[in-house]
Amino acid sequence: MPLIRPDIDRMAGYVPGEQPQESGWTKLNTNENPYPPSPKVAEAITRAANGRLNVYPDPLGTQVRREIAEQFNVEPDWVIPANGSDENLTLITRTFCDADDLIAYPYPSYILYESLAEIQGARHERILLNADWSWNWDIASPIIERAKVVFLPNPNSPSGNIWSDGDLLRLIPPNGVLVLDGAYADFADTRTKAEILSRPGVGERVIVTRTLSKSYSLAGIRSGFAIAHPNLIAAMRKVKDSYNCDSLTLAGTLAALQDEDWMLANVDRIRTTRARLTDSLKQLGFNFVPSQSNFVWATRPNGGHREIYESLKAQKILVRYMRFPEVPYAPGNLLDGLRITVGTDPEIDCLLDALNGLV
Amino acid sequence: MPLIRPDIDRMAGYVPGEQPQESGWTKLNTNENPYPPSPKVAEAITRAANGRLNVYPDPLGTQVRREIAEQFNVEPDWVIPANGSDENLTLITRTFCDADDLIAYPYPSYILYESLAEIQGARHERILLNADWSWNWDIASPIIERAKVVFLPNPNSPSGNIWSDGDLLRLIPPNGVLVLDGAYADFADTRTKAEILSRPGVGERVIVTRTLSKSYSLAGIRSGFAIAHPNLIAAMRKVKDSYNCDSLTLAGTLAALQDEDWMLANVDRIRTTRARLTDSLKQLGFNFVPSQSNFVWATRPNGGHREIYESLKAQKILVRYMRFPEVPYAPGNLLDGLRITVGTDPEIDCLLDALNGLV
Repeated sequence: MPLIRPDIDRMAGYVPGEQPQESGWTKLNTNENPYPPSPKVAEAITRAANGRLNVYPDPLGTQVRREIAEQFNVEPDWVIPANGSDENLTLITRTFCDADDLIAYPYPSYILYESLAEIQGARHERILLNADWSWNWDIASPIIERAKVVFLPNPNSPSGNIWSDGDLLRLIPPNGVLVLDGAYADFADTRTKAEILSRPGVGERVIVTRTLSKSYSLAGIRSGFAIAHPNLIAAMRKVKDSYNCDSLTLAGTLAALQDEDWMLANVDRIRTTRARLTDSLKQLGFNFVPSQSNFVWATRPNGGHREIYESLKAQKILVRYMRFPEVPYAPGNLLDGLRITVGTDPEIDCLLDALNGLV
Repeated sequence: MPLIRPDIDRMAGYVPGEQPQESGWTKLNTNENPYPPSPKVAEAITRAANGRLNVYPDPLGTQVRREIAEQFNVEPDWVIPANGSDENLTLITRTFCDADDLIAYPYPSYILYESLAEIQGARHERILLNADWSWNWDIASPIIERAKVVFLPNPNSPSGNIWSDGDLLRLIPPNGVLVLDGAYADFADTRTKAEILSRPGVGERVIVTRTLSKSYSLAGIRSGFAIAHPNLIAAMRKVKDSYNCDSLTLAGTLAALQDEDWMLANVDRIRTTRARLTDSLKQLGFNFVPSQSNFVWATRPNGGHREIYESLKAQKILVRYMRFPEVPYAPGNLLDGLRITVGTDPEIDCLLDALNGLV
């Protein structure tokens, strides 16, 4: 009898972007926000650190749930805070997917969904997107029809494009749930909250997930939340660890959410830099997808992306080289390119200088 | 098709001890340490909070792993830090247990193991202990023989007793792993680390788990770790979320571990108070198990435990009323009693005063 579950033994494991622990890197590879969070966050965490760390946190994160409920125009029992949005995505697979249930997600997209399906031992299928990142309904509709969970990052990664509400409504599985992963939603031209949940026919069929890692500059504290019908949230609560969010993260999350203006100012700066980055990439001969996120998917007509990634890395500039096999419209069935996080203006200048010397 | 997995839908869900969020309670119900953590913890967290929270934490918690490895006399690849010991217990079920695998645990004991098995959809069996909390090998051995994972809290809860190394070695399943949950290990007369891992025949068959919630007074930051053969740790790493420990918790954990003396001083105070508590309980007519932990399992010959719990609660004193059905040696097959956390001396005085008025 093998000790480790065969599903786990055979899987490669999700590999997150490189996280060099020493300084000196221009880090444009994991879509972190280059600006610091609201100073109120550090104040709140410091207060909590000098408070009663010997006692367990509030298992339901009541204050945080109330704040989110108010901002997203739902009742608190529609909200579940988590140890990063990652935890909510994991909880969703564990709450809704048995071995014979199907997990579906667009492709190319965020590859973590596939790892989560493998860990859960559930069936999984990619929904191949068109070359322009739009939906091919002949491919998508029959998969959606059979899916228990559809994971959908909107905006998408690595492309940064956003899909319309009309598309989203068509992607709700008739016998399952659509998970709208809004990790990058705050960077879009039209900032949505959870309005879709009040659309007719949505009911218990959509879960909205959010993270404080990107727009709120808080990747370090691991804070995310999901919003859905209380029946779904109650089931997810049974699956989560009792005290999934620590007292420090809960305190920092509340302070960050209460200073939304700080976040919005950072988002504005990033959007401005994003426009400059895409203009410059175009002048350097890159193709790119108009981005609604804090990163840009850049490709060159003649490829050579890995070489560019490696040359940049040699100069201590990290971007994300990504490759997606089994993409029939790409040369050799392989789509690859560079996903570049929108950093500060000096960071982007540094990148553009280096690219100027390379291409 | 039901939306929620039938396993999840039918389970009640683990209910942690009450966590009143307002002050004024004498809280002796969830085995928190009444003393504050080392002041170096708040310093380290404050530094981290004023550092770079916009970037992701080190996904492997390298510095924490090094410190644990040194203290437990293993190499760093034997260590996995987690978002509380709870997360490691969850990771273990997800790494090792498919639906037809058996999860076993002593009974009466920590009931969370049963919830974890239910969530994972794995088979599970209780191993009934003798009335004096020793092992009945006629019951235990055949279950161990078939088990994939055996969870064992040592010291046990709610009893607080500790089992010998001889017992532990007999509890290693021949085709699985024994999980030694050492949540309360620092409170025992003989403080062990992970010595058992170097015993002949143990190899990849034992996982030692620890938490900083109890002895280190850090329930609020959610920090635990597991120690095992690197093959097991590598598999668990594939299952965990990439950034399962946040930067604040990692900083606080490192500072706490580096101030072991502070923890040991608190443990000494608790052990002294524990002796006084058990003496007084005896005088009040309670039976109790000699405790190697930071709590005491107290029962009365004629029962009435729930009433005592409720009368104490009415006086804003919380202890844990626990009931274990299907215990054949108990009257009406129901074992119940009070699990009392060893608080500060004034807290225990307050409890004893109240009990004096009740019994």
